[in-house]
Amino acid sequence: MSSTANAGRLADLINPRSVAVIGASEDQTKFGGRLYRMLIKHGYGGTIYPINPFRESLFGIPAYPSVGALPQAPDMVVMAVPQAKVKEQIAACADRGARCGIVITSKFSDDGPAGAALEREIVDIARAGGMRLIGPNCLGLVSPANRLVMCSSPAMDVDRLVESPIGFVSQSGALMATLFDRMHAQGVGFSHCVSVGNQADLELCDFVEMLVHDPKTRVICTYIEGIKSPERFVDLARQAREAGKPWLAVKAGRTDAGSQAAFSHTASMAGDYAALEAVCARENVVLMEDPAAMLLLAHAMEGRPGHSVERVAVVTPSGGGGALAADRLGGAGIPLAEFTPATRAAFSEFYAEGQARNPVDMGGRKYEAGENSVDVAERTVRVALADEQVDAALVALTTAPMLGAVTEALVKGGESSPKPLMFVVHPGRAAQDSREFLRSRGVPYTDNLSEAVEALGAWRRWSAFQPWPAAVRPAGCAPSGPVPGARSESESKRLLAAAGIPVNREVIVADPAEAARRAPEVGFPLVAKVISPAIVHKSDVGGVLLGVRDAESLESGLREMREGIGRAMPGADIQGFSLQSMEGGELELILGARRDPQFGAQVLIGSGGVLVELLQDFVVLPAPVDPATAARALRRLKVAPLLDAYRGRAALDADAVVDAVVRLSWLAHDWRGTDFEIEVNPLKVRVAGQGCVAVDARARIDGQVKKDEGES
Amino acid sequence: MSSTANAGRLADLINPRSVAVIGASEDQTKFGGRLYRMLIKHGYGGTIYPINPFRESLFGIPAYPSVGALPQAPDMVVMAVPQAKVKEQIAACADRGARCGIVITSKFSDDGPAGAALEREIVDIARAGGMRLIGPNCLGLVSPANRLVMCSSPAMDVDRLVESPIGFVSQSGALMATLFDRMHAQGVGFSHCVSVGNQADLELCDFVEMLVHDPKTRVICTYIEGIKSPERFVDLARQAREAGKPWLAVKAGRTDAGSQAAFSHTASMAGDYAALEAVCARENVVLMEDPAAMLLLAHAMEGRPGHSVERVAVVTPSGGGGALAADRLGGAGIPLAEFTPATRAAFSEFYAEGQARNPVDMGGRKYEAGENSVDVAERTVRVALADEQVDAALVALTTAPMLGAVTEALVKGGESSPKPLMFVVHPGRAAQDSREFLRSRGVPYTDNLSEAVEALGAWRRWSAFQPWPAAVRPAGCAPSGPVPGARSESESKRLLAAAGIPVNREVIVADPAEAARRAPEVGFPLVAKVISPAIVHKSDVGGVLLGVRDAESLESGLREMREGIGRAMPGADIQGFSLQSMEGGELELILGARRDPQFGAQVLIGSGGVLVELLQDFVVLPAPVDPATAARALRRLKVAPLLDAYRGRAALDADAVVDAVVRLSWLAHDWRGTDFEIEVNPLKVRVAGQGCVAVDARARIDGQVKKDEGES
Repeated sequence: MSSTANAGRLADLINPRSVAVIGASEDQTKFGGRLYRMLIKHGYGGTIYPINPFRESLFGIPAYPSVGALPQAPDMVVMAVPQAKVKEQIAACADRGARCGIVITSKFSDDGPAGAALEREIVDIARAGGMRLIGPNCLGLVSPANRLVMCSSPAMDVDRLVESPIGFVSQSGALMATLFDRMHAQGVGFSHCVSVGNQADLELCDFVEMLVHDPKTRVICTYIEGIKSPERFVDLARQAREAGKPWLAVKAGRTDAGSQAAFSHTASMAGDYAALEAVCARENVVLMEDPAAMLLLAHAMEGRPGHSVERVAVVTPSGGGGALAADRLGGAGIPLAEFTPATRAAFSEFYAEGQARNPVDMGGRKYEAGENSVDVAERTVRVALADEQVDAALVALTTAPMLGAVTEALVKGGESSPKPLMFVVHPGRAAQDSREFLRSRGVPYTDNLSEAVEALGAWRRWSAFQPWPAAVRPAGCAPSGPVPGARSESESKRLLAAAGIPVNREVIVADPAEAARRAPEVGFPLVAKVISPAIVHKSDVGGVLLGVRDAESLESGLREMREGIGRAMPGADIQGFSLQSMEGGELELILGARRDPQFGAQVLIGSGGVLVELLQDFVVLPAPVDPATAARALRRLKVAPLLDAYRGRAALDADAVVDAVVRLSWLAHDWRGTDFEIEVNPLKVRVAGQGCVAVDARARIDGQVKKDEGES
Repeated sequence: MSSTANAGRLADLINPRSVAVIGASEDQTKFGGRLYRMLIKHGYGGTIYPINPFRESLFGIPAYPSVGALPQAPDMVVMAVPQAKVKEQIAACADRGARCGIVITSKFSDDGPAGAALEREIVDIARAGGMRLIGPNCLGLVSPANRLVMCSSPAMDVDRLVESPIGFVSQSGALMATLFDRMHAQGVGFSHCVSVGNQADLELCDFVEMLVHDPKTRVICTYIEGIKSPERFVDLARQAREAGKPWLAVKAGRTDAGSQAAFSHTASMAGDYAALEAVCARENVVLMEDPAAMLLLAHAMEGRPGHSVERVAVVTPSGGGGALAADRLGGAGIPLAEFTPATRAAFSEFYAEGQARNPVDMGGRKYEAGENSVDVAERTVRVALADEQVDAALVALTTAPMLGAVTEALVKGGESSPKPLMFVVHPGRAAQDSREFLRSRGVPYTDNLSEAVEALGAWRRWSAFQPWPAAVRPAGCAPSGPVPGARSESESKRLLAAAGIPVNREVIVADPAEAARRAPEVGFPLVAKVISPAIVHKSDVGGVLLGVRDAESLESGLREMREGIGRAMPGADIQGFSLQSMEGGELELILGARRDPQFGAQVLIGSGGVLVELLQDFVVLPAPVDPATAARALRRLKVAPLLDAYRGRAALDADAVVDAVVRLSWLAHDWRGTDFEIEVNPLKVRVAGQGCVAVDARARIDGQVKKDEGES
């Protein structure tokens, strides 16, 4: 079925003509009581069937003793019954022809193997009856677009539902309700808000797909703990992009501590954050840290569809507020716009000399400009946003006289511009009027500078996205079938060389005499290493000669080596020696490739040697990758400035590194059906025109992976 | 005068028996009107003199036409008159015997040279009359401890002043008012809150000194843009420590953008943040980024005087909330406590298997534990805080049924423990009951996880402080008088060697023949460098020979070098050649020392070569420094793990590096009256027992600094 059809079917599913509430009551201390009241309160337009064997009616609506007793098949049924009763209720719903069941009850796959087995059973029963499930262990859903509240959270107890073009799918029900509550306090709502719980049947990607096709949704937000169908995730990201809908995501489990917490929470695999980051970077899914910042950004974006943000103007009534905002933006790498001369000229009419700068401290107005801070505020925002260097304005609001009027003027100043305004409302009660005005006008605001900085930073990343060019297999990089097994250094390098990646010259010899004879094939100076399966760390046992300068010293050196190892490890089987060219290089990098269990083949570029771990200086890319993208990734390394010309030394051969990354990415692509890893450490990089060369490598190729592990 | 006496005098000064308000009115659109009303409203107990030539009385209090007309000398006078009238008013106040004047008016040193000159004039006039000044360009002060409000900000318009043992001195008036407002909304107040403005007379250190000695203040907060008296700052930090009062500080100008903004704001030198960080680390002044987080921490600390925090327990009603909190804490390097077996056993009574872990998801309670989330909440906090591994609990509150009752239970669970609880109240209106309860009980809370994470991280740093041992001059490091001038590599190394820092062997020779003769004094292989004042970058002109292995190739190499340079730079005066020993080393570091214009002599340790800038991998320490502190600083480098044993290579000689740092710090100390800088790059570090050696160095010593530049 096409994505559109799938999405349409799901859109119908959560826009039911009738709903049944199992365990409905009037008792507001119970799940069923609260949920039932919210459903009625928010004006659901379809038929409501309360299920309660002890009551004839609830809040004046006729009740039924069971789902089986309903006069017609309910489109949707919600239940928060004890875990032991879920199975029979699901069976009854499926029997009665329900199309969708929401199971709030927990202690299924979130609670160990027995729960997981029961969860599989209820899914089987539902599917056999043609019924889809949301949950279990979820908090239901809220669809302001459908006037449907199927959620017991106290957060739903608002006067009226607000509909905004923001869709939200959450793997945490509490977080969904919390953000619903928080955004409601700012006058912002949602199109649809779904808590997917254990995702036993319908899962995050199903609802994202629905939101991609939903005309009432302009921005998609997700809270993710683990991704169930990575390939679909990637495909939906493309669809969202094509639909012009930003997809924002917070993923728990970024750190080890968070990962463990997320794992125990929904029993779904937290996955490798770096692998997810790589895929999200390619697909322009915007990963964020703070869910509140995600919703702030969603609100800002839905009001300015398609708007790009790079440079920001800061406007503030306080020099201190401006300095702190500038520090935080600067710390997050968000550039303050430099005003054009025209802007500075316009500002000089009412700002003192030297004050027509960014951040704009409205307290710096000319003395003769008087006390009319309201006019100054409006003019300031108008002038700042008119500057072509400015893409957005951040207002850092501190307390000030007439703060409400100043706020109105600031907003008014921004109304003429298509560029967004975002407010940080630092103060407490003194800014209540300001907050209420901002809420009434739908202007994005937050009480916390960190949230605004994260939102603007994420908007910048979203704006800077460029679709990745298609990867094209380079010449001299024939498709390579993976053959399982661990690979020695020599074998690994042969695999690299076959893909067209330069490796140092090597000759394998049987003994010191052959070494002396054949050394010219490698050239001096050279490196000689013992070959013995018994020896893992060659240098620890004197099994490496560095910088050998002639045949004589090579032969004598290898004889000594053989004797020394023979004495130290009498049983070691010395199979021969590897003679390798000594390679110079100005910089050492590491290249790697592996199969991520979720997202398949990926390559890695990092600082070489021990620095990669020390500095956490690496970038992961999905494979295969095109040269332009690989080049951008290379430039993102902390050591990237070392690639440039430096004190008379020419720039390094970045093109050669990029070529090696591209070729390695194709090798990884060819092996994608296999669990593998391969690493070049170091890759020595020379000056431009002189290429790079792999001087050590290792690989492990474990064999075909099972289909259901993900990658096909 | 002693610090105590100074502080007492200032305490008296801001606890006046009478205050005069120049420009007092009943008009709430005017500064003087608002300030006058706030003064009356908050129950100031002394005599109030409104000054207004057009009114007989204001709000029923007799008004006077001028300060000169007052029946007695007012202890304090506040004015927000036009800038052009300030001087005459100050003169009148001084004449009438006022003890303290607060000048709200701006456009003095904050507005260019003319304003600065006028500012100096008013200070002179005031001092001549025995009057002290606060401001100009300030927002006045609020002393809940004295029931004194001398501030026009709308933030003061609260029902009643709250007094808390938190003192706050701010270089931004708007920020002071904003934080007053924000904390008031949380039920938290201050002892004294002072906006120091341009600090023309009384300055930040004066008020910090007062707070150090103030019995009503337990925690000191400061917002700093530039430090006027660095030596006093350091001395006060020691006094605050001795008084057991944490000193928290936010310093604007951390980044270039923020620095520029701060500079234009108060015209005080923003200074070098790294230099300030070094001094604050030594003195345990806790530098923070977010002023709201600073106040949150101050509130938490004042409730738990002297309490140390290292490891944290997270308690949450939501697995999602817990995972995100764990991620953020982990990202900030704050360890989650690992529960002891006793705690896990206690939790296993009501939590499902595998859930008795940190973060504690209260949703993970056993099914048979039922729905009583209130009891579970109380027990959870009690058990978590009883764990000896736990120093504090962070509650990440998401929406949940009975959230208010759950909040009460959580707080009750914490009451038995001396360890602090801090709440992050994520939701909006649904948590209103929770917020009100927390406010009523004085429990620290915030709506934003970032603030809590920053506060806990800062608390950890404060707790981990150890007083630095006294620095003792090492043997063989005779006091060294600075002699102005730029220093060549050789001269710089001689200075280092005289301080006992190992440098590589060097022989200076006049010509290639002498080089060949004397080379054995250095030993082969060696490095030979041309000496010529005309040549700055020797290697660019072929002026360096590396790895010279014998006398013959040295002599011929130097002849070729001389000819080559002679052809390329005919005018270059070749004075001779430097022969230097080639030094091996496993790691390159950089050492440096300089005189910071504010805080005097400092040393720096960093990654060597280009890495120091690339990675921003350096630590600055005030000089002189003791070995233990230098060793801790060395371990803080990103490259520090390279000092450890690695793949059969022994650990490196960290002791030798520490010794070199200590010696360099004494050199810096000896030169502290001079503007100087000296750099060793690289210092090659060998394996333990084999020391380290400076192989390149440069220095600049510019001569005595003027007394008034700071360092004596």
